[in-house]
Amino acid sequence: MNPKSKRTRRNDPKALRNHVLDVAARLFQARGYHATSMHDLLQKTGVSGGALHHHFPTKKSIGLAVISDRIAPTVRETWIDPIRAATSLRKGIASVFAAIIIGVEARDAIAGCPLNNLALELSACDPDFRKAIDAVFSEWQAALMERIGRTSGGARLDRIKRSDAAAFIISAYSGAMTLAKASQSASALRSAAGILARWLRDRDLETIEPARL
Amino acid sequence: MNPKSKRTRRNDPKALRNHVLDVAARLFQARGYHATSMHDLLQKTGVSGGALHHHFPTKKSIGLAVISDRIAPTVRETWIDPIRAATSLRKGIASVFAAIIIGVEARDAIAGCPLNNLALELSACDPDFRKAIDAVFSEWQAALMERIGRTSGGARLDRIKRSDAAAFIISAYSGAMTLAKASQSASALRSAAGILARWLRDRDLETIEPARL
Repeated sequence: MNPKSKRTRRNDPKALRNHVLDVAARLFQARGYHATSMHDLLQKTGVSGGALHHHFPTKKSIGLAVISDRIAPTVRETWIDPIRAATSLRKGIASVFAAIIIGVEARDAIAGCPLNNLALELSACDPDFRKAIDAVFSEWQAALMERIGRTSGGARLDRIKRSDAAAFIISAYSGAMTLAKASQSASALRSAAGILARWLRDRDLETIEPARL
Repeated sequence: MNPKSKRTRRNDPKALRNHVLDVAARLFQARGYHATSMHDLLQKTGVSGGALHHHFPTKKSIGLAVISDRIAPTVRETWIDPIRAATSLRKGIASVFAAIIIGVEARDAIAGCPLNNLALELSACDPDFRKAIDAVFSEWQAALMERIGRTSGGARLDRIKRSDAAAFIISAYSGAMTLAKASQSASALRSAAGILARWLRDRDLETIEPARL
């Protein structure tokens, strides 16, 4: 970083905040929250201790902001918006998996789903982290439930069954991404995509069109 | 700990090693690997720095031993052995989920699956950890594949499809446990159990008996 860009950020609190969150989100995703120190954040962001402390008095406040301002929007962009926009739930889920598989295969290493990574690292150690993470899962699940309700099979399900189906889709994806990270291979994501597509078809959770006969 | 038990362990290298691994497995599960320091391990085990260093020259060597000597046996006990012993795959999976749900509800907090926790924390940061974790997932997947091959529907599947089905079961469970940890509720495990049971029935992945007609 050159001195000019540093000065620019110092004079632009919003840009500085965004820069810190971008760097923190990247480090948490690559190494984890606990393995990233405040020293790492100072060094990698290039901001002064005073400026960092002014925006984020604690490392925890950076963690919470990464969840709400980086991870929640990522879940919206990769999952919620495409599912809402898709002509059918099955096609929406297929395209989400396809995009994620392309994404993980384009990178050198499979770092996993940022929400799942922080969920397992932080849910048990701090109630504020757990609530922030649970809120993102809940938003994701609610969006899937709403879309399931607009399918032939889903319209016949009660609220609890729609909630179960939504949780199952998130679970199958989340677990497949864990296997992908552990094996450094997208194959569990591919198999989950194929099995979920057939499951959605069998349960009539495809479109609002009349059920296939 | 009283001085006598400390002396006993000092004279019994195997007991000392087991004690360190028990404590380390518990701390990694409660806090995570990176959030557990060597100082924590010394303090909680009550062993001397010299004795700890003699058995485990590095924290990483403790992590690897926890995976092979504590987490792998736990996966065998909770998943692999019950699935092998069950009269049908569907009943085996139902009883595994039931036992896990009873277990998580009996505790004050849902700490998640130890293998999944370390998989997301450590797979991307160290290739030795990743390989050790992947080996446990592979053993689990192979046991499920073998059992799937002994069902009516599974006997008709090729090796790749059996592998996909096995990965899907592990994924659905793993992801459901992540949701359970984030929500501190077993409901995602219950819904995954119910949906998997129906899926196994629909795919004839129940027993070696002739397919239902």
